[in-house]
Amino acid sequence: MSHQVKIFDSSLRDGAQAGGVSFSVEDKLKIVKSLDRLGVSYIEAGNPGSNFKDLEFFKRVKEINLKTSKLTAFGSTRRKNISVKEDENVQSLLTANTEVVAIFGKAWDFHVTDIIKTSLEENLRMIEETIRFLKEKGKEVIFDAEHFFDGYKENPAYALAVLKVARDGGADCLALCDTNGGAFPNEVYEVTKKVVETFPAVSVGIHCHNDCGMAVANSIMAVEGGANHVQGTYIGLGERCGNTNISTIIPNLQIKKGFFCIPKENIVNLTATARYVAEITNVTVEASTPYIGNSAFAHKGGMHIDGVKKASHSFEHMQPEDVGNKRRFLMSEVSGKTTILPMIQKIDKDLTKNSSQTQELIDELKRLEHIGYQFEGAESSFELVMRKYLGKYKPFFEVNYYKVIEEEPARNAFSSSALIKVRVDGKEEMTATEGNGPVNALDKALRKALEVFYPSLKAVHLTDYKVRVLNAEEATGAKVRVLIESTDGKELWSTVGVSTNIVEASMIALADSIEYKLIKDLEESEGGENNGNDDDTKDISSTCRA
Amino acid sequence: MSHQVKIFDSSLRDGAQAGGVSFSVEDKLKIVKSLDRLGVSYIEAGNPGSNFKDLEFFKRVKEINLKTSKLTAFGSTRRKNISVKEDENVQSLLTANTEVVAIFGKAWDFHVTDIIKTSLEENLRMIEETIRFLKEKGKEVIFDAEHFFDGYKENPAYALAVLKVARDGGADCLALCDTNGGAFPNEVYEVTKKVVETFPAVSVGIHCHNDCGMAVANSIMAVEGGANHVQGTYIGLGERCGNTNISTIIPNLQIKKGFFCIPKENIVNLTATARYVAEITNVTVEASTPYIGNSAFAHKGGMHIDGVKKASHSFEHMQPEDVGNKRRFLMSEVSGKTTILPMIQKIDKDLTKNSSQTQELIDELKRLEHIGYQFEGAESSFELVMRKYLGKYKPFFEVNYYKVIEEEPARNAFSSSALIKVRVDGKEEMTATEGNGPVNALDKALRKALEVFYPSLKAVHLTDYKVRVLNAEEATGAKVRVLIESTDGKELWSTVGVSTNIVEASMIALADSIEYKLIKDLEESEGGENNGNDDDTKDISSTCRA
Repeated sequence: MSHQVKIFDSSLRDGAQAGGVSFSVEDKLKIVKSLDRLGVSYIEAGNPGSNFKDLEFFKRVKEINLKTSKLTAFGSTRRKNISVKEDENVQSLLTANTEVVAIFGKAWDFHVTDIIKTSLEENLRMIEETIRFLKEKGKEVIFDAEHFFDGYKENPAYALAVLKVARDGGADCLALCDTNGGAFPNEVYEVTKKVVETFPAVSVGIHCHNDCGMAVANSIMAVEGGANHVQGTYIGLGERCGNTNISTIIPNLQIKKGFFCIPKENIVNLTATARYVAEITNVTVEASTPYIGNSAFAHKGGMHIDGVKKASHSFEHMQPEDVGNKRRFLMSEVSGKTTILPMIQKIDKDLTKNSSQTQELIDELKRLEHIGYQFEGAESSFELVMRKYLGKYKPFFEVNYYKVIEEEPARNAFSSSALIKVRVDGKEEMTATEGNGPVNALDKALRKALEVFYPSLKAVHLTDYKVRVLNAEEATGAKVRVLIESTDGKELWSTVGVSTNIVEASMIALADSIEYKLIKDLEESEGGENNGNDDDTKDISSTCRA
Repeated sequence: MSHQVKIFDSSLRDGAQAGGVSFSVEDKLKIVKSLDRLGVSYIEAGNPGSNFKDLEFFKRVKEINLKTSKLTAFGSTRRKNISVKEDENVQSLLTANTEVVAIFGKAWDFHVTDIIKTSLEENLRMIEETIRFLKEKGKEVIFDAEHFFDGYKENPAYALAVLKVARDGGADCLALCDTNGGAFPNEVYEVTKKVVETFPAVSVGIHCHNDCGMAVANSIMAVEGGANHVQGTYIGLGERCGNTNISTIIPNLQIKKGFFCIPKENIVNLTATARYVAEITNVTVEASTPYIGNSAFAHKGGMHIDGVKKASHSFEHMQPEDVGNKRRFLMSEVSGKTTILPMIQKIDKDLTKNSSQTQELIDELKRLEHIGYQFEGAESSFELVMRKYLGKYKPFFEVNYYKVIEEEPARNAFSSSALIKVRVDGKEEMTATEGNGPVNALDKALRKALEVFYPSLKAVHLTDYKVRVLNAEEATGAKVRVLIESTDGKELWSTVGVSTNIVEASMIALADSIEYKLIKDLEESEGGENNGNDDDTKDISSTCRA
């Protein structure tokens, strides 16, 4: 029977304190559902005392029937020198009406005297009274001992006294917080062990920040020391350098060390959950993020690729599929023939490692990368490059002419318009559209013209559009790389275009996207090759990408 | 006298194996100089055997007179069943002619038998003979024991035998590699301690990967166990989840634990070095990166800001200036009046926390953020918002009309042209330009027209141009946020524009940039306020930003 470590996710509270993050009530509701589906023990969703958006959230969240997670409201101990009943923030915690309340209080004497500016004894009363009050109201109470490790270093007796009064007040869990993020792993281990020994009858938790790059490791060491409750944020967002990354902690504890954190069958959803939470939060998860990042299992060095193909555990500490992720072999100048060959053979079965075209294609890849193309994450464009090169390509259309006009003040509702003339099998089609910007106008014009010939294009829509400025010191004269993700409802594919001109770069990526769809349609109608997920050739990424 | 821990930076070798990274020879030379200036002990700059670009690099690098760092070439032990002399890769290590060579060899029996496919004894010979050969050629030799921790777990006797023959061959350092990144901190501590006890006369090093999010902590624990050599990459890039982040390790060891890693006077350059290396590598350093990230000392929660203003160590584990970074208070809906007030008072000294305009400005900030503006990192645009709102603003120009035309095929060299009509103090100026894209054409036209009235604008040029697609699921119809960084040679400032139309969004940011410059000029000529670095109001970021 595995030991349980309770996972306490504060994406919606501590995570909301990260730069660039701002959740609407709708955003929060979506993330609550997602985390509950994953099965974390606690979802700390807001601070009703300090944020009126959160008050509304706590009203609306009652519509959701949580299956696994316990909703938690966060707030401070009562303020100094008033009774608990008089404190409005504590009252708002009751109004939030959650099953669980997390109360934070100062465990570092310096903070008590110099920041809150009260006496050490009053601080102890603030803590004990607030917890006791909430326990009497039937709440489960988690006490966050703020600045615990710094406090313990400077005045261990007081830090332990703080925990003692919290326990006496009835706290169900004493969570030790490395609020400033400066603690080291062995310190955290020793101190946590001491606390666990001192308070054997209560759950001990850990809450770390990543200011020394060791939040995850510190949390792991705390569990080694006897903690059975880990606080963090699902994708590691938080003040300054962020909080403990929960999407790293869960597989570390559950897959690698055999603890129980979430229902076993949900481990495979770790990656999808991360991408979803990132999407709602409107941030990009760094590709190198452990377990769930788009490049967590991406291999580039020739020997690494060679090893993994022989036996995946030669260069992977675990199987990507276990967490819902995928292995990728990165195409690049160091990939070599071994990586690119399967992609080439998909187009022309007869080519081998030693065919001259193989080398020529690698040289073409390097040439294109040199001018700014990057086919990692846009393999569909590279597939078109290969098809064109190998003569396995018949253009489905030509764009003979286009003109995009941008005018301010606008003559009508839209400031942008585009004309386009295309030719398909000798027949011409010319049309015009308006758009809410030059790229949008041209995109719409291109499709409008081609849908006359290829009605299946109606099913295609774009799901992502990214612009990367390549040599930013050239500023508005810089080359840009446009990455487009398209779907026809069945498959996702990515294409790329590079130019100093964003309209032209977008046009290249858009045209490639349409070509790719038309090639797919043709092959399917010919009962062609299985176009399914091939690790080597497609990166059907969802919202989280490099 | 502090103990030294030698820092071994492999940005240019292991770092080059990160997805999306591709160094030219020039890039590598620049980074070598930068790391040498910082004073790391070793710079592992390439693998001359496997990469012909690196052969050229090792020729050209001889032009550089390194002051502190020792240049290191990386390569494999000889291949199986041939002599060292016959191995071309080993020969190329000699041709590279570096002072130091890092040789990697397998320490995990499974890799020897199943991946390289040779006998355990032959592997030992490969290691010992290669190292002995290089030592006889006068090299300092570092042995990277690949897969050491996995190997030690499965067959400790063999793993130690590998180290023994490396030592017998004359290796100056035995670096234990957690190549797959799956080890935990206490394991690394125990195993490293064992190795240090077994081989007391040789330096023991550590090389970790971040697949469990613990590369930095594992390296720290290895040092606790007696290692005195840490390998990593300066900004943590590398295969899969990356390598140990050297810009985190150095301050962790030197500032927090008193070891000697780099010359003391260079600690203050840690942040600038990270930004420079990132710029050359063409990646963005994540804002939340410890010590050197743009948000490493960025505070958002009201209580955090309040605490830090009272005493910075209340919420910071160290002073940002010590590593060349800056504290930031993030403006946001949770900032509250305390954060924004100093910015407001810079415009209108008479406003207070309780003035109605203060609340109105905060509401205006929230409204703008709601439609996509983000003023973190573009405080100059917010300054203009405030000035306009408070009536402390007289427009320097009006744009009466513009038209941008994009045509393909182009009638001449450029496919984009722009017309613009501006008005300054009742006088009109109309002009036209060409550009290599619609935004570039409009940018040039705007400046051309305004330089007639304001010649000081000639000194302004843009140093960065970023585009962020806000609601990417709308694809080409999505809102974009354009961030522009400008300089006049003395100061850097950032401005922002939001629209579904990238040309319009760019225009807003460009116009704000010019207005900001003209306001600055006016204030300076009036002998106005000190426009120097105010933490609260300006974020004169260099190349590394959120």
